[in-house]
Amino acid sequence: MCEANVYLVDETGKEELILDSVDKVIPDENGITLENIYSERKTLRARIKLMELVEHRIILENLD
Amino acid sequence: MCEANVYLVDETGKEELILDSVDKVIPDENGITLENIYSERKTLRARIKLMELVEHRIILENLD
Repeated sequence: MCEANVYLVDETGKEELILDSVDKVIPDENGITLENIYSERKTLRARIKLMELVEHRIILENLD
Repeated sequence: MCEANVYLVDETGKEELILDSVDKVIPDENGITLENIYSERKTLRARIKLMELVEHRIILENLD
């Protein structure tokens, strides 16, 4: 399976795991919605900073 | 390997394959840069509309 782990990075570069095994990522004007393969959902006021799919990593940063 | 195929969708819903086997996706204020596992790179004035990682699909839509 090719899901990814989603991390939120803060201004010091520290990464916090937000949700693992993420399948769907849906950005909108207010932020981003994540859904994993267990149908867990999280919505954050964040945007994608970087994705490294081979490493199964998606890095988000806070909006604002 | 867990790379994805990246498609650009137009206003009619038609999808055009932009780059296959994409590993890295880097958005910025002007658009998005894609890099695949063969080190091919493309930059577009587009944003992510939807990602379905289990299906290896990333859908972009044009900015503007």
